[in-house]
Amino acid sequence: MNTRTLAADQPIGVFDSGMGGLTVLRALRAAMPREHFVYLGDTARLPYGTKTAATVQRYALQAAGRLVTLGVKAIVVACNTASATALPAVQAQFPDVSVFGVVEPGAAAAAEHGGTVALLATESTVRGGAYQRALMRRGVQKVQARAAPLLVALAEEPSAAPHIQAAIIGDYLSGLMHSADTLLLGCTHFPVFVQQIELQLAGRAVVVDSATTTAAEVAASIVPRAHEDRGEITLLATDGAERFRRVGARFLGEPIHRVELVDV
Amino acid sequence: MNTRTLAADQPIGVFDSGMGGLTVLRALRAAMPREHFVYLGDTARLPYGTKTAATVQRYALQAAGRLVTLGVKAIVVACNTASATALPAVQAQFPDVSVFGVVEPGAAAAAEHGGTVALLATESTVRGGAYQRALMRRGVQKVQARAAPLLVALAEEPSAAPHIQAAIIGDYLSGLMHSADTLLLGCTHFPVFVQQIELQLAGRAVVVDSATTTAAEVAASIVPRAHEDRGEITLLATDGAERFRRVGARFLGEPIHRVELVDV
Repeated sequence: MNTRTLAADQPIGVFDSGMGGLTVLRALRAAMPREHFVYLGDTARLPYGTKTAATVQRYALQAAGRLVTLGVKAIVVACNTASATALPAVQAQFPDVSVFGVVEPGAAAAAEHGGTVALLATESTVRGGAYQRALMRRGVQKVQARAAPLLVALAEEPSAAPHIQAAIIGDYLSGLMHSADTLLLGCTHFPVFVQQIELQLAGRAVVVDSATTTAAEVAASIVPRAHEDRGEITLLATDGAERFRRVGARFLGEPIHRVELVDV
Repeated sequence: MNTRTLAADQPIGVFDSGMGGLTVLRALRAAMPREHFVYLGDTARLPYGTKTAATVQRYALQAAGRLVTLGVKAIVVACNTASATALPAVQAQFPDVSVFGVVEPGAAAAAEHGGTVALLATESTVRGGAYQRALMRRGVQKVQARAAPLLVALAEEPSAAPHIQAAIIGDYLSGLMHSADTLLLGCTHFPVFVQQIELQLAGRAVVVDSATTTAAEVAASIVPRAHEDRGEITLLATDGAERFRRVGARFLGEPIHRVELVDV
């Protein structure tokens, strides 16, 4: 077994401000079932979406650095806010590791459907404009962007009454969807609402997110693991392992048995 | 001027996870207009209410330590979550400074009205049980506690539609208020909703919070400043000075002109 094969057997690192990125991990596993994954959720400092670019960059570099010490062969910045504001900084800091974000793949998915794109994201992602620029570069003529901070809190509170969910989602959509053809979910927390969103849209627009296109991009770029068995996932969090298990299962789409606490 | 007078002229330090504690600062200033105040909002790591006790304690000790280096004569832990989980740790770490929390004064305010008390607070505050114990010690026979995490996000998004606010508040109240006589707002973010809450309660219960009773307790304990002019406030935040100015004015009840960024 040569060095290249050994490196290929290393896990793919994924990080997020908290649990939302588990929707991306789910898509990554579906696309690459034989790969090992290490997921780091920075739950001690979430959310990133209301913080400034400078602070998000600092946090992202610390999280990526932690994954690098674990020997990952690639890093997926699963957090939209961190992808939108810190991807170049992470790539510059760790030039020997392939670093993937979710903004470009998300923009590609939305541009494929064409027409006017409505973007629902965090305050920080909307303000930074990375999605808007990525969409424009792909020929999208018109982008309507709206920050939806309540949706992040809502996604992390599964106990909220259904009519509250419907009212909040309806409020954000009503401001956006008069003329949009495609709704881009620009925050990894939002795919958990896709059924409710599609119900309210009633076919007026197509809903896309970054998870599937990101997974395809990563799968096409990495040197695959050299074994046939199903890969393992390791889940790390900077705070609240119990809450991570309980709430995170909603994002990962399967029960979570074990979460290790780490410092970054 | 002797040492005692010099010490008396030092500011009172106030800290919170973010901007919610400005509702306490507002009450402190009303009670002690001649005092100087230094307010530190740990906006880079907010919210505290979904984090574990160990993490909240670590953050609270760092914030209090920062205030101590600024020479404060007293510290008010304006964050309910930090008061409920970290007050003894802060007091033990800084024995030479008077440290006040908001849980005991809040419980005293609620107990004064008697009857069954409904508590609306963060996940962490409810789970820790400090309010429930403080109320029981004061002879309250029955406490209904409910975590209201969406209200924290809602308080920080002034742009949310009025009907969304009403629906979220109504949902939390409906689970609590069947038999309660007093509603205790156990999170410094919640007083901004007091009008909407009282509208929905329609006189069925009295609404109390910690701010006024905390201010009275601090005013009764400190050595007052020896000058007659109005004291100054200094506002520090660990992230997002612009957002702090914009959203914080809602909590402070007056425009905010200047916020300094600091590390803790």
